[in-house]
Amino acid sequence: MRAVVCRHAELGVEERPEVALGRGQVRLEVLRCGICGSDLHARTGMDSWADMAARIGYARMARQGEGVVFGHELAGVIAEHGPGCKGALPAGTPVVAVPLVRNGGDVDAIGLSAHAPGAYAEQVVVQEPLMMPVPNGLGAEVAALTEPLAVAWHAVRRGEVRKKDVAIVIGCGPVGLGVILCLKARGVATVVGSDPSPGRRALASRCGADVVVDPTVDSPFADGDRHGHLTRARDAFELVVGTREKLERLPVGWWHLWRLGERLGQMPKRPVIFECVGVPGMIESIVDEAPIMSRIVVVGVCVGEDRITPFMAINKEIDLRFVLAYTPLEFRDTLHLLAEGEIDPRPMITSTVGLDGVADAFAALGDPEAEAKVLIDPRA
Amino acid sequence: MRAVVCRHAELGVEERPEVALGRGQVRLEVLRCGICGSDLHARTGMDSWADMAARIGYARMARQGEGVVFGHELAGVIAEHGPGCKGALPAGTPVVAVPLVRNGGDVDAIGLSAHAPGAYAEQVVVQEPLMMPVPNGLGAEVAALTEPLAVAWHAVRRGEVRKKDVAIVIGCGPVGLGVILCLKARGVATVVGSDPSPGRRALASRCGADVVVDPTVDSPFADGDRHGHLTRARDAFELVVGTREKLERLPVGWWHLWRLGERLGQMPKRPVIFECVGVPGMIESIVDEAPIMSRIVVVGVCVGEDRITPFMAINKEIDLRFVLAYTPLEFRDTLHLLAEGEIDPRPMITSTVGLDGVADAFAALGDPEAEAKVLIDPRA
Repeated sequence: MRAVVCRHAELGVEERPEVALGRGQVRLEVLRCGICGSDLHARTGMDSWADMAARIGYARMARQGEGVVFGHELAGVIAEHGPGCKGALPAGTPVVAVPLVRNGGDVDAIGLSAHAPGAYAEQVVVQEPLMMPVPNGLGAEVAALTEPLAVAWHAVRRGEVRKKDVAIVIGCGPVGLGVILCLKARGVATVVGSDPSPGRRALASRCGADVVVDPTVDSPFADGDRHGHLTRARDAFELVVGTREKLERLPVGWWHLWRLGERLGQMPKRPVIFECVGVPGMIESIVDEAPIMSRIVVVGVCVGEDRITPFMAINKEIDLRFVLAYTPLEFRDTLHLLAEGEIDPRPMITSTVGLDGVADAFAALGDPEAEAKVLIDPRA
Repeated sequence: MRAVVCRHAELGVEERPEVALGRGQVRLEVLRCGICGSDLHARTGMDSWADMAARIGYARMARQGEGVVFGHELAGVIAEHGPGCKGALPAGTPVVAVPLVRNGGDVDAIGLSAHAPGAYAEQVVVQEPLMMPVPNGLGAEVAALTEPLAVAWHAVRRGEVRKKDVAIVIGCGPVGLGVILCLKARGVATVVGSDPSPGRRALASRCGADVVVDPTVDSPFADGDRHGHLTRARDAFELVVGTREKLERLPVGWWHLWRLGERLGQMPKRPVIFECVGVPGMIESIVDEAPIMSRIVVVGVCVGEDRITPFMAINKEIDLRFVLAYTPLEFRDTLHLLAEGEIDPRPMITSTVGLDGVADAFAALGDPEAEAKVLIDPRA
């Protein structure tokens, strides 16, 4: 079986033996696999990532010298059932899968552990109960995006965005584009996309962003201001004191005044901001610029240490919600949203390459004007 | 008028002229004023605090050389009404007040700005509409604690703690003790207090904590574990895969399995954790130790820069909610909870001193075994 192996930050195509099927496992022929931003990070920063993962209790993340096959955004067809499978879906069925696999007493992340080779390969092994059939004849190129879009869907759900809210998406790479698609699929009226790259802003518009902003020129929160946001703690102080004094002159009761004062003075509209960049300093800069009472959903994975100034977040009463991955149900819902055409991620697919093209694609993905989501077709 | 003035980190009693009353302002005779932890910080760190405040839009915070009178936890009686007052409450009425005052186009924080001298003094000027009468003959020593307890009440409300939740309070200084009192007043069943000081743990118990923990010996989250929390991201992975495989064997439908799997696998009980220490490194250490899906309410004000590792917070899907102060309605509710005996903060009052005793009290407050909340009686 041909596979792209990453060893000491070098990507090369190798001939690898077939992986033995464990209990309840299924071998797939890979049709498409997406290149994820975390694969780009992992190529060079694998060891620090493995150290972090060990800190949260997962000690089997790949390390530099081990030779790992990336690929967890996968779509394939069933080739072979392992021992103990129920086999409800016959060979040849097109499927996607939550990329986790059980190895004895361990659970491994497919494509991020040497114990669970990923789908940058002709074949991949998945866990039968975490696999599901692709409905409605949905093409493999879109089905492969179930995984990254489930990440976005989960982030939007955890953000508790309501239809009338203003949602501001910072960073319009594949994660940010996915969040924009999911926000619009949920009917959120005002979605602002912010990215310094003109190419990414054009993709954000094609994915449904109502407003796109170049943060080197305009503030992505300016649109928020026009919606009546307060950006400074001082504004809130003044509103409390000012409003209370004005309200005192109204011929209504004391308690009613308090309640009205609270509603007017202390409940500014709060936007929901999605941090989809994941580099150190981003959280701090958003806290600095965001309106008071903002909810910031941190979707971008910043692997290293970061600095924040809690005083700023405290004075603005910021809600910083960190999110990861998705539940199995969200994964299934995302697949069906794709199959029913509620989410159309095709604008973000910029290229499809064969296994031999993966190393070049990694290089091209460094330029936001060149690429957004690259798919691998192992048969190409 | 005698007042305690802080200048270049030195506290001294001085004779000061009466402050002129602006429009809508009222002069109070101070009966009691609490010493707040932020006053302790401000004594030595005033300039860095003023820089931070300027960053959020408040440029009139006191600076080292200015000579500021601290004191924003105040109770007094009305002495004199200024121009434009309604005068609904006559002279002699015992009152408390939200410590904000309007000075022309500015709103100043009483006791933290040279433009709004605080209540470490015989008299203080407050804004009439932000003042409210003390009901039920509540004593001034308890009424003066309306302000710090409103901070705690707001934190608990923003934490959205339900009665059956486990609440874990990190740091049992006055802020933490206030949070414990408010959690119990709201009927939260299990409140864990954590503090390395035996004296502070004893106060936590007297304020109603169900469990107290010395974090140098035990984890405050261990109690959480016994309630079925998951502390590691890996536990959640294993639960998803393990649960799904077990569920497959049950004779129920596919969709039902997903929903059950999600409920069992991805919805561990989430405790609500209150960070009431406010020193660099606390947020990170809580994120490191906290169960998955924890909500952390940051009440302690850490003025400097802090470091966090977003990867940890992401992998545990932490919700970091920064809170500040209270709304006028919360302030009023807190006063009434005190007046009706729902919250009894007397255990945390460890001393009452005169103006001449303030400098020594600041020193004593450095030792958690010696003091918790010190009140000033300007007539003592």
